[in-house]
Amino acid sequence: MTTPIEIHEPRACDGAIVRAFGFLGKRWNGVILSTLIDGPAGFSELRRAIGGISDSVLSERLTELTGATLVERRVADGPPVAVEYSLTPAGLALVPAMRELATWARENLPATD
Amino acid sequence: MTTPIEIHEPRACDGAIVRAFGFLGKRWNGVILSTLIDGPAGFSELRRAIGGISDSVLSERLTELTGATLVERRVADGPPVAVEYSLTPAGLALVPAMRELATWARENLPATD
Repeated sequence: MTTPIEIHEPRACDGAIVRAFGFLGKRWNGVILSTLIDGPAGFSELRRAIGGISDSVLSERLTELTGATLVERRVADGPPVAVEYSLTPAGLALVPAMRELATWARENLPATD
Repeated sequence: MTTPIEIHEPRACDGAIVRAFGFLGKRWNGVILSTLIDGPAGFSELRRAIGGISDSVLSERLTELTGATLVERRVADGPPVAVEYSLTPAGLALVPAMRELATWARENLPATD
């Protein structure tokens, strides 16, 4: 026994959500940003933390995230010369959404590995 | 003039975030879920709302989302026979994160079209 299905109003999907998933869903972008939530990190540190990402892809993604002003690249004079990546205010603004997403995934997406 | 860069503790990226972006970032998954936030919808209604998605891809994604128990498929006896998709409790649990993400994208990701 099922109830009749009503006719719904036309709806449009939210353009901001499409942009958010288009950008953050691009492989590694969201993961790199979430890794930087814990604080600034150098290139090798990021690569180790993320795992499974190649130097060239990490470098490309960091350039993209820096271009989108979500990540800041800072060079210390040294010695030793060191490069450090950190979240900008726009990147930090993503933290509440990231925490919500992580909580949801822990409760609703089974770990496959 | 730059300040010295400190040595940071090793960190690991959050597995839940990796899963969340792996799943929601898969083209259309996040967008389909966010479209269903407004209430149940039929297949054609979803296709029109999303735009740019083919029947076969929408069908495949709905099967995947139903399998992950984030979306429920309901068939009304009719006439007319009608199929309706809606969010399950696990899908609805994603709403706060979606709203945070949309707000962030509106403020921090420029619209490109």
